Amino acid sequence: MSDEMEISLDAITSTQVLNRVNALVKLQDQHDDLNLEMEKEIKAIEAKYRVLYTPLYEKRSQIVSGAVEPSGDEIAPKEPIEVPDLKSGAEKGIPQFWWTAMKNHQLIGEASADSEHDDDIFAFVSNVSTQEPEGGDEFSVTFTFADNQFFSNKDLTITVNINQEEMDLDSIDVTPIQWKDGKNFTVKKVEKTVKKKGPKGKAASVSTKTIEEKVPSLFASLFLKHELPSAETMEVEDDQDASEIQTQYQCAVILKETIIPNAVEWFLGRASDDDDGFGGQEGYDFDEDMDEDFDDEEDDIPQIKPKSSKNSAAAPQPNNPECKQQ
Amino acid sequence: MSDEMEISLDAITSTQVLNRVNALVKLQDQHDDLNLEMEKEIKAIEAKYRVLYTPLYEKRSQIVSGAVEPSGDEIAPKEPIEVPDLKSGAEKGIPQFWWTAMKNHQLIGEASADSEHDDDIFAFVSNVSTQEPEGGDEFSVTFTFADNQFFSNKDLTITVNINQEEMDLDSIDVTPIQWKDGKNFTVKKVEKTVKKKGPKGKAASVSTKTIEEKVPSLFASLFLKHELPSAETMEVEDDQDASEIQTQYQCAVILKETIIPNAVEWFLGRASDDDDGFGGQEGYDFDEDMDEDFDDEEDDIPQIKPKSSKNSAAAPQPNNPECKQQ
Repeated sequence: MSDEMEISLDAITSTQVLNRVNALVKLQDQHDDLNLEMEKEIKAIEAKYRVLYTPLYEKRSQIVSGAVEPSGDEIAPKEPIEVPDLKSGAEKGIPQFWWTAMKNHQLIGEASADSEHDDDIFAFVSNVSTQEPEGGDEFSVTFTFADNQFFSNKDLTITVNINQEEMDLDSIDVTPIQWKDGKNFTVKKVEKTVKKKGPKGKAASVSTKTIEEKVPSLFASLFLKHELPSAETMEVEDDQDASEIQTQYQCAVILKETIIPNAVEWFLGRASDDDDGFGGQEGYDFDEDMDEDFDDEEDDIPQIKPKSSKNSAAAPQPNNPECKQQ
Repeated sequence: MSDEMEISLDAITSTQVLNRVNALVKLQDQHDDLNLEMEKEIKAIEAKYRVLYTPLYEKRSQIVSGAVEPSGDEIAPKEPIEVPDLKSGAEKGIPQFWWTAMKNHQLIGEASADSEHDDDIFAFVSNVSTQEPEGGDEFSVTFTFADNQFFSNKDLTITVNINQEEMDLDSIDVTPIQWKDGKNFTVKKVEKTVKKKGPKGKAASVSTKTIEEKVPSLFASLFLKHELPSAETMEVEDDQDASEIQTQYQCAVILKETIIPNAVEWFLGRASDDDDGFGGQEGYDFDEDMDEDFDDEEDDIPQIKPKSSKNSAAAPQPNNPECKQQ
């Protein structure tokens, strides 16, 4: 199935059948109108609850950063965590709270596995929050950092713009990083040998030149500006921008949908990737053949598509009338 | 991440940190309570709209079966389908409506590709509907058949039971099929040669025996009772029941979520699998490496898990607070 597919009209064998099909198309129009109304109502409810969640997230942020010290009833949940043989300590807040939570998500953990610098910088994260302006064409994820040696920004925000009609990714913007002098660990200077062909009959000259090379890290994937891949680059394997924008986008969705709402469960490592859009499946797999057939499972979240492949002239996407979360 | 994973407590380094973590666990409790309320409100909205959709689906069913002939304004949708050079015809309703719609979904089409009998029997489908009793632990998909030579049932219903707490598949029940004599095409009689070892020193005796062998078809996958695989059989590749219950379950979800709400779009072949849980991705893929990492994308729909692998003693699954359809 693709946007480009032709309407198949072979089953419409007479004017009478055509009339009946057009009657169904009219019923579908009415259905789609109702569906839009339903989606509006659901969005209004989600917005209402976002407001109700906010004070809980703020309190959490204050406890994590050490701005507020909880006591009494506040530290008595239904099923308290118990850790034997703990001593008293002088830590401020909950050190490494967000970085521990993030690394417990399989895909974020993997995206950071080979980095030398992620542990150093993400340790300074004191809060992660998400913003979703009314209208719904964008959402953002903001990391708040404590004072650190790397950059002077207090907040770094990833803003994801979705094309609602096409349900694909329009752009991702990030806060420009104000690096402190010589602290930009996302690039390293590399000496490169340059051979210059000499004039006819003369020897080639060899010189060295210092160039900047990207150093892979989750931090760089998340907070640098990557170009949304074109149809061409998406076809090229190992295109770094395509791969990094995929990581950036998916991590933003994972943070918004999965980690921020349940951060303490992720911190404790007892949350599961099962119910987000990208998690590894736990338990057993069906046999390989079936897996292949049903492999490309996707979420309701928008797809990443190359910019140039948009053709809005193609068939309308029927709206899925059911919110799949039940 | 798996149910069996230990809570990671290394980051809890002092009694003070433990108290702060327990304060977050209490905040999470409050968050989860709110989240349950939100889900209830969303379900109520979905139920309200199911009631509003019903008369549209009923009218559709009457037009498809030929019980009602639309005319006038009813056959004038916003964007009418046009087919040049049609003649008048004597068909009743819209022949092959549901089977055409179903086959246009990639996975259902593939699941039926090798069958000799699906075309014959699914041609008799006059309606497909879904039922979702309040409470939400089950849903069913009902196929209504016109009189046919194969069986005497008017309706065949697939009922899917979900364990809401674990978000996995509990059982799938199907209406027993009342086959007409000799018309059960899901099995065929096969003559099999049986060698019996003779007594010591004597020749082996060879005889033939007639056995029944399963004949694969989408119909059999959908409407026969398959055993929910155990942990053992799920590990065996090519286990037929495991593979068929996967098809059965996924087709039921596809019909409920994707095809029934937009049947005429599927009939016309201009609907896309993009927004259901199992569709093939259109457009471009990222490079293979990234694909592998982010491959096991899953929907909000429950997972199929082997029965014996349930261990509810394990960690609670944090509820995803956001209905992902936006």
